[in-house]
Order: sequence, then structure tokens, then C-alpha cells
Amino acid sequence: METMTLTWIAFFAGVISIVSAGIFLAIVLRESMGTSRMKELSDAIFEGAMAFLNRQYRTLLPIVAVITIVLFFVDPSLFAHGAEGAESLPKTALPISFLVGAISSALAGYAGMISTTKSNARTTNAARTSLGKALTVSFRGGAVMGLSVAGLALAGVSGLFLVYGNPVVINSFAFGASAVALFARVGGGIYTKAADVGADLVGKVEAGIPEDDPRNPAVIADNVGDNVGDTAGMGADLFESYAATSIAAMIIGNSILGIEGVIFPLLVGALGIFAAIISTFFVKLNDDEGNPQTALNIGLWSTNAIIGVGTYFVASYLFGDNSLGIWLALLFGLITNIAIGYLTEVYTSYHKKSVKLIAEASLTGPATNIIKGLAVGLRSTAAPMLVIVLAIGGSYYVAQELANGFGIYGIAMAAMGMLSAAGMVVAIDSFGPVADNAGGIAEMAELGPEVRKNTDKLDAVGNTTAAVAKGFAIGSAALTAMALFTAYAKSADLSAINLLDPMVVVGLFIGATVPFVVASQAMDAVGRAAFEMIEEVRRQFREIPGIMEGKAKPDYARCVDISTKAAIKEMVAPGALAIGTPIVVGFLLGPLALGATLAGATASGVLIAIFMSNAGGAWDNAKKYIETGVHGGKGTDAHAAAVIGDTVGDPFKDTAGPAMNPLIKVMGTISLIIAPIIAALF
Amino acid sequence: METMTLTWIAFFAGVISIVSAGIFLAIVLRESMGTSRMKELSDAIFEGAMAFLNRQYRTLLPIVAVITIVLFFVDPSLFAHGAEGAESLPKTALPISFLVGAISSALAGYAGMISTTKSNARTTNAARTSLGKALTVSFRGGAVMGLSVAGLALAGVSGLFLVYGNPVVINSFAFGASAVALFARVGGGIYTKAADVGADLVGKVEAGIPEDDPRNPAVIADNVGDNVGDTAGMGADLFESYAATSIAAMIIGNSILGIEGVIFPLLVGALGIFAAIISTFFVKLNDDEGNPQTALNIGLWSTNAIIGVGTYFVASYLFGDNSLGIWLALLFGLITNIAIGYLTEVYTSYHKKSVKLIAEASLTGPATNIIKGLAVGLRSTAAPMLVIVLAIGGSYYVAQELANGFGIYGIAMAAMGMLSAAGMVVAIDSFGPVADNAGGIAEMAELGPEVRKNTDKLDAVGNTTAAVAKGFAIGSAALTAMALFTAYAKSADLSAINLLDPMVVVGLFIGATVPFVVASQAMDAVGRAAFEMIEEVRRQFREIPGIMEGKAKPDYARCVDISTKAAIKEMVAPGALAIGTPIVVGFLLGPLALGATLAGATASGVLIAIFMSNAGGAWDNAKKYIETGVHGGKGTDAHAAAVIGDTVGDPFKDTAGPAMNPLIKVMGTISLIIAPIIAALF
Repeated sequence: METMTLTWIAFFAGVISIVSAGIFLAIVLRESMGTSRMKELSDAIFEGAMAFLNRQYRTLLPIVAVITIVLFFVDPSLFAHGAEGAESLPKTALPISFLVGAISSALAGYAGMISTTKSNARTTNAARTSLGKALTVSFRGGAVMGLSVAGLALAGVSGLFLVYGNPVVINSFAFGASAVALFARVGGGIYTKAADVGADLVGKVEAGIPEDDPRNPAVIADNVGDNVGDTAGMGADLFESYAATSIAAMIIGNSILGIEGVIFPLLVGALGIFAAIISTFFVKLNDDEGNPQTALNIGLWSTNAIIGVGTYFVASYLFGDNSLGIWLALLFGLITNIAIGYLTEVYTSYHKKSVKLIAEASLTGPATNIIKGLAVGLRSTAAPMLVIVLAIGGSYYVAQELANGFGIYGIAMAAMGMLSAAGMVVAIDSFGPVADNAGGIAEMAELGPEVRKNTDKLDAVGNTTAAVAKGFAIGSAALTAMALFTAYAKSADLSAINLLDPMVVVGLFIGATVPFVVASQAMDAVGRAAFEMIEEVRRQFREIPGIMEGKAKPDYARCVDISTKAAIKEMVAPGALAIGTPIVVGFLLGPLALGATLAGATASGVLIAIFMSNAGGAWDNAKKYIETGVHGGKGTDAHAAAVIGDTVGDPFKDTAGPAMNPLIKVMGTISLIIAPIIAALF
Repeated sequence: METMTLTWIAFFAGVISIVSAGIFLAIVLRESMGTSRMKELSDAIFEGAMAFLNRQYRTLLPIVAVITIVLFFVDPSLFAHGAEGAESLPKTALPISFLVGAISSALAGYAGMISTTKSNARTTNAARTSLGKALTVSFRGGAVMGLSVAGLALAGVSGLFLVYGNPVVINSFAFGASAVALFARVGGGIYTKAADVGADLVGKVEAGIPEDDPRNPAVIADNVGDNVGDTAGMGADLFESYAATSIAAMIIGNSILGIEGVIFPLLVGALGIFAAIISTFFVKLNDDEGNPQTALNIGLWSTNAIIGVGTYFVASYLFGDNSLGIWLALLFGLITNIAIGYLTEVYTSYHKKSVKLIAEASLTGPATNIIKGLAVGLRSTAAPMLVIVLAIGGSYYVAQELANGFGIYGIAMAAMGMLSAAGMVVAIDSFGPVADNAGGIAEMAELGPEVRKNTDKLDAVGNTTAAVAKGFAIGSAALTAMALFTAYAKSADLSAINLLDPMVVVGLFIGATVPFVVASQAMDAVGRAAFEMIEEVRRQFREIPGIMEGKAKPDYARCVDISTKAAIKEMVAPGALAIGTPIVVGFLLGPLALGATLAGATASGVLIAIFMSNAGGAWDNAKKYIETGVHGGKGTDAHAAAVIGDTVGDPFKDTAGPAMNPLIKVMGTISLIIAPIIAALF
């Protein structure tokens, strides 16, 4: 087939994915929302979520506008390094690609947030019938996000390639996605934890009312936060990884293999989408005593299996004798996917030793709980790093030795292989907040315990899938950063970044420091934002008469507003550091130092991401483990210590840890964009 | 002058330093120990300290013996890379250098520990007369350690160079020092915190008796621990830095500048020793209302000033036109010394904002205290890393541009400049445990409040000097690691370590992970060792009748024994990882990957060291700040929260953080030793 025909296949796969998302959404919307109280609650969450998204995108608007205008004045031929035909690109290529990237990511965010916040009460209502029905509704709600992310990303990348015929220039598509991801991930992370801490600390601890109690003014903000963090944040994060990886793979493929190397990543993406759509049909519970986790696992495994088998044939078709090496490289990505998910469970599940040890350490108080949790988190970096290192080394090796010296392309293919499953991973991850909200609505609408039992089962599964998706997001961010790093070096025409050059060491040290500082900023931001929320909740309890008796309605919207404003304000500093560091290092110290900065930031960023998300997950589950009755259960000193650990873990796992992914990718994307400019300067 | 004559000057400077240490010790020993009770307590601490050292060195003995024997079978000519004459070295050169390094470091440890534990009661007794007298005795007690470390290191290095005439081979001197440092730092860190936590948790919290109460069975172990951590640990750490840096500088100097480049670092060391000896006379209090901190600062500043001026003339004499660049490079080291000390204070002093914010966060409970402390620690990495980066970049630049392209030598000189002040830094650091113990003895011997007031003043100063010395140790470890890294590349004949080679990235990621795992191991080790101690203290309170009434004497020796055994046992795993990683990476993945492993480990090791030691210091002082009466003072919830933060900070600042220094240096030293072997294999 002609190469352009193949690109059209990828483009249509993207479109099909978007259409499927629309169909799933329509099916979900046909379900009933239950009682008027349930509808009212769901609407409040929906409105809060939209308020956040609107404000976020409104804040982004001037930034996007300025960048778009700047890109109009950048000569696209600057990006001609290593790719032919870039000289003849129209002046609009860069700004349009950038805009498409930003808008596509924003659209995916809207689609996903509409879907998850519209599915929550419907899931609650379905849970009144059966667990199986509730799983179906909530999973479909999540699948809308998954298919939107994968579909919009693939359609965007392949569409721009069809229009401009040059992969180099459309890295500004990835830049657009990066800008949105940085906001969504960091801002979303701050939002969700500010609301969570505010709701918990004043509601549960001070006022002594249960979780998800409608009398708590921050309860809607808290429920919005679940969607803002896990759906919008994770979705934008993986959209960015998807866009950046496919473009980096296309740039590398173009320079090593020519047009086949450009087409292949797009076809892998197309296969991933078909695999995800097919696999959605396997996610169901035939029997109400079945385990929802198993159903979701089957969906994930079947997606990986279809991709694994399918890509073998695509590779054979495109690469002939070289296909085995490239295909095996891709498999390394799929294996990484599974291995990291498994390792996340080892360190964060309460059926495993690490979490049990943290629970045990809670017996001697909060200090020992914290020390043990930090130790578990720090140690948990080793195995996933080994997996990532094996994926990098292994994919390089097979593509170098079994294919015709295509090692670097092999690494990009491992990243692409991992990300091709993104549609399903995001679907499963977005299912989490739907289930979580469904439980909250059941509680707030005062439905019976049998409903709550069903939603609790889904919610418990959602916690596991969230942890696994976090592992996936970190692993894919690491491989994406590697791919961006390689593409950067190609784009800046660097043949070597020599660690024996002191300037390179300087760059490495600077890069490695950035994640430490951003993690600190994120944690401080949560502290400050939560403080504002606490003050507001206290004020409402104090000033609104009848609120505690359930006679007066709290002002939910104000709490939503506070979280939203705080999140937007607090993400400026880490955002500036992420964008500013590569620019300052690049223009001051040159392209070699900047390359090392990327390597350093990736190494320490991935380590901190794993450390923080696993420590946070482990603390959370140590608390839950004690709540099952171990060590005396709730009300004991051990439980109190575990609650403190969980509170420390919250900004770890939901704000600072996830912020590392867009951080290292944004740094890579910005570097890739300025690469030709600084290469010309130095 | 002839080069050998100059080397003799360095050797004699070392000897003079050792003799001065002996004189200081003799002067201190002439002082009275006060009452028989004071003598008894001091003797118990002395015996505990000796028991620890004896056991530690006994454990080391077989390891040292095996390495010595192995080195007998290594052909010294393997180390001929880049240096002439190595082929003609006798077969005994390697094992003898190694033995001398290990024994010298051990001797310095003994000298220092004897001195500080013999000075404590004498300081208490002097405090009965005046603050000034107490400062003089305690500082002299510390100076014995400082002068022993600097003197033995310089005499060892220059002595071996006089015997063998080749700097390459005597890197096994540094290896010997490394072996001891790893044990002393990691084992000492575990010892001191196990004893501290055990004494505090059961004594202060459970039994409600004050700190340093003689009824507490762990009180002697706790006092021993102060010496084991700050004196033996810090001393061995800086001995190792000193040895490794001077040898690395000599190797680099030899290959770039010839014999002058080899001699210069030795003369810088000699100057540092003279500067330290002269400056000891400035450390005194003329007036009893004076500030001991100012007196110590004058000692430190005068040391730096003498080195700064003196090296100008030495450089002019040796290098003529090239001297300015080399001298300025050295100044970068002295400035780093001062800047890092200042920054440590910014983040850990309770007169500054960071600590105050942690204290404020304690008002909302332990969780917010912990989050804020972690955020402060993470953020505090930025400025010191910038200082280190400026030192690396700046010293390279001046030596490259102002001297004849001697950039790499410039970096080594910055490290040497920083370390030349080690004699004074260790003296001031070792003064800390003397003052701390003196206060403990005053308490246990039930001396009046006016004595305690004087020792408290000294103790408060000791906390600051300990923090500053920690910063110094980290900064110098970073520069030492850089020097070792450069020397490694020379020794393995590497002309480039290219980050675009995936194997190099793999090495980088592995290296960056090691410090995370070792930090985890160290924290877990403290937890386990403290647990044993807690059990033992509880048992003694339960089983020894009359212990709480002060009628029966607790079994101090058993507690000392438990800490000692636990420390030795628990340091096996991190030690194995430190030594094993370079060997496995080197022989499996080759010299390029190993080079990157060193770079990655240095970057993340230094970051974790700064993060943990500053977070720990900040938590400690936030507690002390509240104890001054702020936020309600002792007995409030805020204070309880701050105590939890301090407990988490203990293994951070005294075990895991300091363990990073020997970790990155040992990895560098081992790599340097196996460099020629793996270079020949790959």
C-alpha cells in the first residue's frame, strides 16, 4: 500500500475512536440518574468540574495565544535539521500544529470530564440493580475518556502529518499538548488535595461528620477533585505522552528508516485503538458475585495481547527482514507496562509485606509510621527502575542486533508499544473517579447499605486501578522523556553529550535538582490551598445557621471556587520552572548542557515520581488495612498514626508525584523546540 | 627546590599535625575530671566508645585482610595507565598502600574518640569555673580529632608518594580509607540513632524521666552515640574525602601538568594544616559574656584566609604564568565551603523563615509538620546544588582560560581547596559531642544550674557547628566524587562518556537509584536497631528492682552492646550495595556505563544528602523553636507534632543523609581501582 494510504488508516482509527467515545457517552446518558436528589448532587459535581475546566482553559488561553503568535514568527525551516522538505513548509505550520495540540488535549479533557461526571449518579442508580450493571455503566463512563485521549491524539498527529508531510514541524503539536498537561496535572493535583484535605480535616476530624456528608461545604469540591485529578489530569498526561512519543518516534524513524519508520508508530497507535475498542466488550461481570477487578484485568490483558500479535504482522509488512528486531523492541514496552503495574501492587497493596510493615510501624506512633512509609517508598524505586533500564537496554539491543542497527528507533518503539495501550489504561483509570463519586452520591442521597456495598466494591477496585495507571503514567513518561531526549539530540545535531565535559555535568546536576524543587513547590501549594479551604469550611460551619442540622444548604460553589482559584494560582511557579529551566540552560550554557539537563531531570524525576506515588499508596492502604480490624482497627492509636501517614501521603501520590510526569516531558518538548535555535547559536 | 624536597615538606606538615594533636591531648588530660561521679560517668562513655570502635575494627579486620591478600595478586602495572613508571612498582605497593590507608583512618578514629570522650567530664569541670575555660577544653578535645585526620591523611599520602614515587598506585590508600569510612559513617549513624531513639522513647516518653537521666539504661549508649556519629563518623568521612581528593588531584595533575601538578595538592594540604594549627590559638573567649560561636567562626575564617593567601604564593612559585587560573580555581573551593555553611543555616536555623514555617505548620498537627519539613528539605537542595555547580563550572573555566587549558585540574583544585580546611572543620565538629556529653555529665552528676547553663551554651553552638560541618562534608564529598569520576575516566582511558549511548543512560539511571535504596536501608536499619534498644530498656525497667528510685544501677553496658551489634549487622546490606554496584555494572555493562553510574549516583546522592540533612536539621530546630515558648511551647499539641517531626528527622540527618557521602565516594574509589581491569576487558 502507499504510505499515505497507511497514514489515512491511522487517521481514521483516531476518528473511529472518537466516534466510539461518542457512542459510549450516548449509551451512558440513556441511563437513569435515579432520584431527584441524586440528580441534584451529580449536577453539582458536573458544574464544579466544568467550572474548574473553564477557568483552567481560560487561564491557559492568553498563554496559548502568545505562544501561537510567537510561533508565527519562527521560521519553520529552522526545524529542517535531519528532515527533508521542512524548508518548504508554510509559515502557519508551527502555530497551527501547536493550536491543534492544545485544543485536542482540551477537548479530550472536556469529553472525559463530561462523561465521568455524567456517569456517577447513573452508576449509583445501576448499583441499586446489580454490581454488574454498575460496573458496565462506570466503565463505559471511563472508556469515553480513554477513547477520546487515544483517538484525538492519533487523529491529530496523523492528520497534521497528512497535511504537512513532515514529522519535525509537528512537534509543536506535542508542545500544545504539553502546555495543557502541565496545567491539568499540576493544577488538578493541587485542586484535588486542597479539597480533600479541607473536607476531611474540618468535616471528619473537627465536626465529626462522616465522609461524603452533604452538610460538609467542601464535599462537592472533594468529589469534583476526584475527576479533576484522575480523569482530567491523567488523561492530559497520557495525551501528552502519546503525542510526544509518536512524534519523537516519527522524527527518529524518519532519519533512520525513512518513511516506513514514520508510518509504523502511527499504525501501532491505530492497532492500540482497535484493541481497546474490542477489549471494552470483555469488561463485564456475568455473575454478581464476580470480581470487577478481574473483569478490568481481562480488558487490559486482551488489549496488550491484540497489540502484541497485531504489531508482529504490521512490522513484517513494513520492515521485512528487520521486522523481528523492531517488533521485539515494541514488546519490551508492553512487558514494561505489565511489570510496572505488578510492582506497584507489590509495594502498595495491603496483601503484601511492605504495607503490612507500615501498619505494624503505626503501633509505635506516627513517627515510625512515617519513617517506614518513606523507607518503603524510597526502596520501591529500585525494581521499576530496573524494568525501565531493561526496557531501554533491551529494546535498543534487539533493534540494533536483530534489525539493521536501528537501536535508537527500538527505544522509541518500546515507548510507543507501551503507550499504544493508553486508550484502555485511561478508560480503566477514569472508571475510578466514577465509582468513587457513585459511592459519594449513594452516601449523600442516603441510599441503603446494599447500594453502598456495591459502590464500595467498585471503589476499592478503583483504588487499585488508579495505582496501576499511575505506574503506567510514570513508566511511559520515562520512555517518552527518553524518546524526546534522543529526538532533541538529533534536532540539535549533537553527535555526543560527553559526561567528561564539565558543562555537561553542570547540566546534569541542574536537571537532577529541578524535580526536587518542583516536588517541594507542589507540596507547599497543597498546604496553602488546603489552608484556605479549611478556613472557608470553618467559616460556613460558623456563619450559616442550621447547617449542622441539615436544615440549611452549605455554599458548595464557594468551596469549588476556592480550590479552582488556588490550583490555578499555585501552578504558576512550578510551571515557570519547568518551562524556564530548559530555556535558561539552553541559551546560557548551550545544547550539550541542556541535553544533560534532560537526562538528569528524567532520572531524578522518575525516581521521585515512583518514590512519592508508592509511598503515598502504601500509607493509604496501611490505613485501610488497619481499618479492616488489624492492630485494633479504627479508634486506636495505631489507626490515628496511620491516618497521619495517609495525610502526608496525599500530596505525595496525588500532587507532587504525578507532577513529575509532565515536568520531565515539558522540559523535553521545550528543548526539542528550541534545539535548532540554540544549535545555531553555539 | 627539588620536587622531592617539597613532598617532604608536606610529609612533615602531616607529622607536625599529628604531634600537635598529641600535645593538645596531653594538655587536655592534665585538666581535672572533677568529682568521682563525673569521672565514673566519663569512664563509662569512654569504655562504650572504645567497645564500639574495637568491635567495628574487629569486624573490619577480616575484610581488610582479604582485600590486602587479593591486592597482592593484582599486578601494579595494570595501573600504569596515564602514569609513567608504574610497571616497575613492587608487588607490595598496592596492599601496603591499602593497609596504610585503613590503619591511618582507624588510628585517627581512635585518637579522636579517646580525646573527645576524655574531654567531656573535663569540660564539665571547666564549666564550673567559666564558659571560656569550658570552650577552651572542649575545643582542644575536638582539635585532636581535626589535626589527627588532616595529619594522618597528608602524612599517609605524601609518605606513600615518597616511597613509591607514583600517585596512581596509592589510590588504594584511599580505598583503605573508604572501607573504614563506610563502616564508621553508616554503622556510626545507625548506632547513634538507635541509642537516641531507644533512650528517648522509653525514658522520656514512657517513663517520664528527663534527658540524660542516670536511671535510663540507654543513657550511656546515647552519649557514646554522639561521639560515634559526629566524631568517628565525620572524621572518617573527611579522612576519606581528603585522601581520595588528593590522590585524584595528583593523578590528574600528573597527566596534565607533570610533577608540579602532583606536588601542589600536597602543599595545599600542608598549608591547610599550618593554617589550622595557627587558627586554634584564635578560638578563645576573652570575656565570659562572649559568644562561643563567634570564637569558633573566627577560627574557621582565619583558616580559610591563611589558605587563601598562602596558596597564592605556592601557586606562583610552582606554576608561574599559569598560577592565577589554578589559584582562582582553588578559591572556588574555599568559597563553596563558606557558601554551603551559610545556606545550611538559612534552611535549618530557627532565626530563619523555613524553620519558623515548620513550627507554624505544627499548629495543625503532625501531618502538616511533616509535609512542610519535607517540602523545606526538598527545596533546600537548589541553592547548594547551584553553589556546587558554580564551583565545578567556575573552577574549570578559570583553570581552562587563565591557565593553559588546565580545566579538569581546576576542578580537582577546588575540591582540594575546600578540603584543605578539613583540619579546622573536624575540630569544630568534634567539639560538638564533647559539649553535648559535658552537658549530659553535668545533668547525671547533678551539678548546679550555673554549670548546666554554661554547658548548654556550648551545646547550642555545637548543634550549629554540626549542621555546618554536615554541609561541608556533603559539598566536599560532591567535589571529591567529581575528582574521582575524572580520575576514573583517565584511568579507564575513556575519552568520552556519551549520554546518547543507551548503555550510558542505563548506567546513569542505575547510579541515580542506588542512593534512594541505600537511604531506605539506613532508615529501616535505625528502625530495627531502635526497636531492639526499646525492648532492652523496657526489660531493664521491668526486671531490675529499684532502678526507678535510683537505688539500683542500670546495665549500661548491655545497651551499648546492643547498639554496637545492631550497627555492625545493619551496615552489611548498604555496604554490599555500595561496593557491589560498581563491580557488577563495570564487569557486566562496561566502563562507559560505570562512568555514568558514578555521575548518576553523585547527582542523586548529593541531592538526597542535602534534602535529608536539611530537613532533619529544620525539624530539630522547629521543635527547639517551639520549646522557646512560641506557639504555646512545651506540652502543647504543636510541640507534640514538632517532636514527631524531629523523630522522623533523626534518621534523616544522622543516618541516611550522612551515609550518602561515603556511598558516592566508595563507589568512585572502587571504580577507580577496577578501571584498568574493565578497560582491558571491554
